[in-house]
Amino acid sequence: MRTITAKFGGTSLADAAQFKKVKDIILADPARRFIVVSAPGKRFESDVKVTDLLISAWEKAIAGQNFDPEMGRIRARFEDIARGIGVDMAFEEEIGLISRSLEAMPYRDYALSRGEYLCGKLMARFLGLPFLDPARAICFDREAALDEEATLEALSRALDGLDGAVIAGFYGSRPDGAIQTFSRGGSDVTGALVAQATCSELYENWTDVSGMLAADPRVVDAPDTVDVLSYRELRILSYMGASVLHTDAVKPVQNSGIPINIRNTNRPEDAGTYIVPHLPADHSRRAVTGVAGRKGLSVVQVEKSMVSDGAGFTAVLLDIFKNHRVPFEQCLTGIDTISIVIRSDLFARKRARILKDIRDKLSPDVLNVHENLSMITVVGENVAGADDLTVCLLLAVANEGINISTINQGAGRLNLIIGVHESDYERAIKALYLAIKRTA
Amino acid sequence: MRTITAKFGGTSLADAAQFKKVKDIILADPARRFIVVSAPGKRFESDVKVTDLLISAWEKAIAGQNFDPEMGRIRARFEDIARGIGVDMAFEEEIGLISRSLEAMPYRDYALSRGEYLCGKLMARFLGLPFLDPARAICFDREAALDEEATLEALSRALDGLDGAVIAGFYGSRPDGAIQTFSRGGSDVTGALVAQATCSELYENWTDVSGMLAADPRVVDAPDTVDVLSYRELRILSYMGASVLHTDAVKPVQNSGIPINIRNTNRPEDAGTYIVPHLPADHSRRAVTGVAGRKGLSVVQVEKSMVSDGAGFTAVLLDIFKNHRVPFEQCLTGIDTISIVIRSDLFARKRARILKDIRDKLSPDVLNVHENLSMITVVGENVAGADDLTVCLLLAVANEGINISTINQGAGRLNLIIGVHESDYERAIKALYLAIKRTA
Repeated sequence: MRTITAKFGGTSLADAAQFKKVKDIILADPARRFIVVSAPGKRFESDVKVTDLLISAWEKAIAGQNFDPEMGRIRARFEDIARGIGVDMAFEEEIGLISRSLEAMPYRDYALSRGEYLCGKLMARFLGLPFLDPARAICFDREAALDEEATLEALSRALDGLDGAVIAGFYGSRPDGAIQTFSRGGSDVTGALVAQATCSELYENWTDVSGMLAADPRVVDAPDTVDVLSYRELRILSYMGASVLHTDAVKPVQNSGIPINIRNTNRPEDAGTYIVPHLPADHSRRAVTGVAGRKGLSVVQVEKSMVSDGAGFTAVLLDIFKNHRVPFEQCLTGIDTISIVIRSDLFARKRARILKDIRDKLSPDVLNVHENLSMITVVGENVAGADDLTVCLLLAVANEGINISTINQGAGRLNLIIGVHESDYERAIKALYLAIKRTA
Repeated sequence: MRTITAKFGGTSLADAAQFKKVKDIILADPARRFIVVSAPGKRFESDVKVTDLLISAWEKAIAGQNFDPEMGRIRARFEDIARGIGVDMAFEEEIGLISRSLEAMPYRDYALSRGEYLCGKLMARFLGLPFLDPARAICFDREAALDEEATLEALSRALDGLDGAVIAGFYGSRPDGAIQTFSRGGSDVTGALVAQATCSELYENWTDVSGMLAADPRVVDAPDTVDVLSYRELRILSYMGASVLHTDAVKPVQNSGIPINIRNTNRPEDAGTYIVPHLPADHSRRAVTGVAGRKGLSVVQVEKSMVSDGAGFTAVLLDIFKNHRVPFEQCLTGIDTISIVIRSDLFARKRARILKDIRDKLSPDVLNVHENLSMITVVGENVAGADDLTVCLLLAVANEGINISTINQGAGRLNLIIGVHESDYERAIKALYLAIKRTA
């Protein structure tokens, strides 16, 4: 039996009309057997997500204040959907239980998880499928880290032999029974774990965009959709700020080599973006997959005679940042000079101590901090080396009169990271995107 | 009293005519008081340096063979010079002592040092200055490393109060009295130490070229001479293969901020190249100081999901190279990828073990070795950042149809290092040099 795990995000579940679209999508392919749901999201710009209502309720509960209004709004949202999709389901009891639980023990993760819980129950009734409460199948350890092995075993045990099921996203439980939510990646991680546990041949991630864009649409006008990219390209673009799947959500399916398909619930006819373990060898339609970047970075630049004489100096420098718990984003060592790229917000609080440590331990000839930088990356899995395409891209930026402060292009495929001042960030992204389009 | 330490290299002392040029140079400026000499070098292309004759003699001595012919040729060279410069000095006794010593104990460093020793004695007689045997003033420790503190003290004690002196270069002695030669930098280091100990305001390094060239003359036709460069630029160009002063020779004068002047004994009218602690602020005649490069490099390229999540991965990787005693030349960490540039000859013998260690300790997603690479650097102390000049330079290389495999430009000033295949090395250097000339 073909198996697809399909995860639907908050906007895909915002109201009854969206629920109906989801059902249509699921019925369109019998392989869509395991359905993972988020909590209902915004119906319109100024709307409030169910999860945000739950946070408000919890904040009032822990402050000893009345949170009936919030619970009332949540109940109304679910009842509204139930009515619209013709499901006879009363939420009075469920909402009452949540309220009483929060009064007895205002526990944050429990409160936060109830949106997915209720949404999953409702969707299961709507689809006529069994509901799986992930509290019984997504396992965290005592330190609140996901226990992958236990999770896959529990999910397999719970889902084996079922033709289909609806699973609530976003949470699981710890060995002590307490609800635990994912700190990063949310329901996307649940979906990826279910896809892995059920040996799905595809993990569909239904959202409100028709796939991943080659650049940030807030910066570039109507950027192209990327039809296919590799896990690695996704990680890089996601790391650099492209708002797509979180790394944590990619790991489980990547481990099993399951492709991901990002789809648009509102435009199911669009093919969306495929994320695959390896790009097909003949995939040379476009050399460059996308451009993304991050602001808020600083560079600590250390100069010392013959840094490159051995690994010692660099190792000591990296250790200093590690000891201060400031992870570095990039490290470039040349002759006599090392540039360490770090997040400005993490650096700011520890700046004086880190610089003092560097002076004390390394007696550098020069120690500079360059601030207000942004880093921009251009990835292209199928472009070997930094050949003339790299130069083309750099030229496109330079032709805009933008100063490039750092250039980092390692061996292998196109992996270019350039540093520009934050004030040049948007212009540089635009210039790179246009250059990519020209070379396509 | 103004004080200059002047060091003369082997070709400046190859025969009587060269000795006369040296004397003229010294007499032309009374500040040239402390004179450091190498051993006589080649008089013509197929000639043999005195030091190479000494190596041959030692090799025969240690093999128990007769080395009279070598000692005869050495004696003839010195007697030839003495006769030509009108100095009445017999070498029979000195050469006899060296021969008997080598028979009794064929000790390599002793043999090697005798060229400078004899040359120093002859030059002292010629100039009418006292001779200082560095065995009494250049101090090494038990591990054969230079003891800078003891050396500066001994040199000061030996030279204080003298109007001038001739010092033999290249060697000193260990605490046990044995002669010890410099493993790197040779007589240039002696000269720098003498300059520091005598508080010279200038360290002149007399050779057979009119200063440092902006590129390798074997690759580029008649490159320009660099009029002034910083210690740091010198180190970088020297590290990258420009045949100038060794780093070890720069350290002592750099510590004291003494400028170096590289001069041509055969063209004393040329100003040569000045090497200074810091470039004068108004020195903007040329943006780029020079281009240099090295072949015989490899890149180990490691890919692993979210390398940049913390300092751990890079530190472990650098440790592996350190443990195998393969110093890295460059380290570029990006997102998911690290490129380590290393010398191919050092890597070759340990390749299998290093790659196994990387696989065992880091389980990388991708592990590639790129070989037969060369690295080319362009330095320009007064160029801030990698602005459009960097792009210009990269474009010049790309326009030659040369693939650039790695690009490393850290923060701060122009510090560009690019990797190209060895077969493209000469063309890339030429292209960069011409681009530099165009922007000058």
